Amino acid sequence: MNPITELLVCHTCRPAGAPREGVAAGQQLFDAVQALAAETPGAPQVRAVACLSACGRGCSAALQAPGKYSYVFGDLQADAASAADLLAAAARHQALEDGQIPWRERPEALRRGTLARLPPPA
Amino acid sequence: MNPITELLVCHTCRPAGAPREGVAAGQQLFDAVQALAAETPGAPQVRAVACLSACGRGCSAALQAPGKYSYVFGDLQADAASAADLLAAAARHQALEDGQIPWRERPEALRRGTLARLPPPA
Repeated sequence: MNPITELLVCHTCRPAGAPREGVAAGQQLFDAVQALAAETPGAPQVRAVACLSACGRGCSAALQAPGKYSYVFGDLQADAASAADLLAAAARHQALEDGQIPWRERPEALRRGTLARLPPPA
Repeated sequence: MNPITELLVCHTCRPAGAPREGVAAGQQLFDAVQALAAETPGAPQVRAVACLSACGRGCSAALQAPGKYSYVFGDLQADAASAADLLAAAARHQALEDGQIPWRERPEALRRGTLARLPPPA
């Protein structure tokens, strides 16, 4: 069975230059992802996490599923375009048996923003 | 059962300023890790991978095990000290039920070099 892809969004990210007070940019990105996922049939599971330890490259998000490649993305804007990029990448990850998304198939902002990729456990 | 921790080392990493020819720094780091693991009782599983997509921050390595936190580290020197740091962190990861290594318990170079941390899949 193809395991469910999980899209993790760090909701505490405050990128360099972003306000230290008020709603964190990460929370805004998570809200944008949730709003878009709610109107997207078959959208992946979305989870807010407190920290992906990519603080220097926020906003950050990740894709994972048991037995598949994992990805961590950074330098994301907290906007609807990023939300759409993340959900598109999550849909590709979900569809691919090993979750390895070819570079060309990643939305452009996610190519630039790929911080790490992990193979499935041996 | 506590799953086996896997220590992944990118063997193709050539950090900025490193020679483009000859043995890659990543391969040197992998060799150092393997040599040390061979003389370390109970050392974790070590695997060379072709790319962790952390190319701008090489040398790079990662820790993972099914159901545990995963870590990606970068800015590593290709030497015996890094190999010792990675094996020490891997041993902590192996010992911890959820694999979440407190910041204070990470070797200092790995604190600075933490590129990302992923929680276990939901």
